[in-house]
Amino acid sequence: MKINAYAAMEPKGKLEAYSYELGEIGSEEVDIKVSYCGICHSDLSMINNDWGMTQYPLVPGHEIVGEVVSAGSSVKNVKVGDKVGLGWFSASCTSCQECMSGNHHLCSKAESTIVGRHGGFADYVRGHWTWAIPLPDAIDMSKAGPLLCGGITVFNPIILAGVKPTDSVGVIGIGGLGHMALKFLKHWGCEVIAFSSNPAKKNEILKMGATKVINSRDPEELASIAGKLNFVLNTTNVSLDWNSYISTLAPKGKLHTVGAVLEPMAIPAFSLIGGEKSVSGSPLGSPALTKTMLDFCVRHDIYPTVEEFPMEEVNKAITHLEEGKARFRLVLKK
Amino acid sequence: MKINAYAAMEPKGKLEAYSYELGEIGSEEVDIKVSYCGICHSDLSMINNDWGMTQYPLVPGHEIVGEVVSAGSSVKNVKVGDKVGLGWFSASCTSCQECMSGNHHLCSKAESTIVGRHGGFADYVRGHWTWAIPLPDAIDMSKAGPLLCGGITVFNPIILAGVKPTDSVGVIGIGGLGHMALKFLKHWGCEVIAFSSNPAKKNEILKMGATKVINSRDPEELASIAGKLNFVLNTTNVSLDWNSYISTLAPKGKLHTVGAVLEPMAIPAFSLIGGEKSVSGSPLGSPALTKTMLDFCVRHDIYPTVEEFPMEEVNKAITHLEEGKARFRLVLKK
Repeated sequence: MKINAYAAMEPKGKLEAYSYELGEIGSEEVDIKVSYCGICHSDLSMINNDWGMTQYPLVPGHEIVGEVVSAGSSVKNVKVGDKVGLGWFSASCTSCQECMSGNHHLCSKAESTIVGRHGGFADYVRGHWTWAIPLPDAIDMSKAGPLLCGGITVFNPIILAGVKPTDSVGVIGIGGLGHMALKFLKHWGCEVIAFSSNPAKKNEILKMGATKVINSRDPEELASIAGKLNFVLNTTNVSLDWNSYISTLAPKGKLHTVGAVLEPMAIPAFSLIGGEKSVSGSPLGSPALTKTMLDFCVRHDIYPTVEEFPMEEVNKAITHLEEGKARFRLVLKK
Repeated sequence: MKINAYAAMEPKGKLEAYSYELGEIGSEEVDIKVSYCGICHSDLSMINNDWGMTQYPLVPGHEIVGEVVSAGSSVKNVKVGDKVGLGWFSASCTSCQECMSGNHHLCSKAESTIVGRHGGFADYVRGHWTWAIPLPDAIDMSKAGPLLCGGITVFNPIILAGVKPTDSVGVIGIGGLGHMALKFLKHWGCEVIAFSSNPAKKNEILKMGATKVINSRDPEELASIAGKLNFVLNTTNVSLDWNSYISTLAPKGKLHTVGAVLEPMAIPAFSLIGGEKSVSGSPLGSPALTKTMLDFCVRHDIYPTVEEFPMEEVNKAITHLEEGKARFRLVLKK
């Protein structure tokens, strides 16, 4: 099958129309006709080879929703005609200890949709059935794509940390990831503090579910909530004064990062010891939890706030994202 | 009441015989006749004013077992004649959110037995009834003192982390704290890896319950258990290559420190994110958990390995500890 896609041919290159031949489908694989594909910051990182693991040509795109058009003979859970989502991962071994424990996202052999293979800025994309997540009938396809990567990335920590409706929580960085975290935590029933360095976003942030917006660049505002939060989620990938956020935690509070900060985090042991606090991290979430999240989203009408571009305008969309103008997540329509 | 004690009169000073007058007992307080008192590294830190909060004269000693000889009118749980233990904390407010949640050790008004007041290198010591922990009848008083501080310090993380008998765990630093952790974890049913930089201790460490001893200074030995441990407890207070220990953790593994390392810990976010790992810390434990621990110790005959000195020889004992010769915990007999 010939795939029509958009690919980066070199680091930081503009995307170009690009075709490639998809070989015979494996017995456990499905081919998905792409309806929408979100643009994630990791797509930019991969286009730019920030992580040193990009192979060119690269077809980015890993927040895919579409329809199964072909399924291998051993495929389970989904069938031709089903609406599915495909996120950062496109395959796991299904048999290691982590896969057998339901943690397919922690499988050491997990394949990423855009590492060493081609992603969703295309008419079709292929993946293993485990990661072709069945979509609820009532889902809004035009907004669902970003849930498959950004959404599950911030949903998983809420589950891992055992956040309760009675908790006071904080979200650092209200962008593509953070704004989804706000929406989840609002529906969780929590008191939600948004840490933002951009006062211009304040009203929008309050509308999305924050109880209060704290200017993260103002030490006094940070100090005003010292010792109050049970859970703080960092969605940025810049080096912060981590200890000032640890000090916003209540006893037994958890600071969790999904932002892949490159510089090691400087964490004073005393700050953890005194209040039984922790610092943790996580990548995405399991297929089972992704399905659970999608059901929750449909039940509560939770979607990312998206701007839509036709897929032909992918470069325009990428520029929009690079310029920090995305409010808050971009989706390409095929 | 006149108390006969041993006190440091200045930073790093030898302890001297010292008497002080204990005022009238408070309605919620008990006076304890000291039978035995352990010597903890924190006693050294306080004698040396390492933490800048020592008031001289200082009577150290916060691993006390003895008998209640006087009790205020509002004292609960214990009465005159009861055997009790008193550890790092001697009072909590009993009414804040943390105390009301059972976390008296996280009370912001908690008093330490040797900060701004006098401890257990003495014939009597006073404390609030909440921290006068009733001792099980069958307990061996001569070895129980160190359980009240060192013991609960390493027991609490095992509970906090939810360590299971099926887990593989590691203990960094096999000294006063670490050797107690080994004994607890052995009785938990875990596979227990001891990280030690002192090969001379190897046989002793294996006898105390380690399944295997890893030379923590040998990168190859560390690498040999990469990705295998569910829980690693750091009991040292020196700056380590934290990432090399994080790499010994299995997915969802927890690195927990009770060692009050002064230099901030350098924790790469990527190392946490990839495997849903965490770094955490804790101080001691609650009175309720201390009681639970003591029952567990008696049921399984778990005690620190102690060397006993008469209290008059306190300076000899302190020198023994300072020279790194303690095997593994020192106790003063009154």
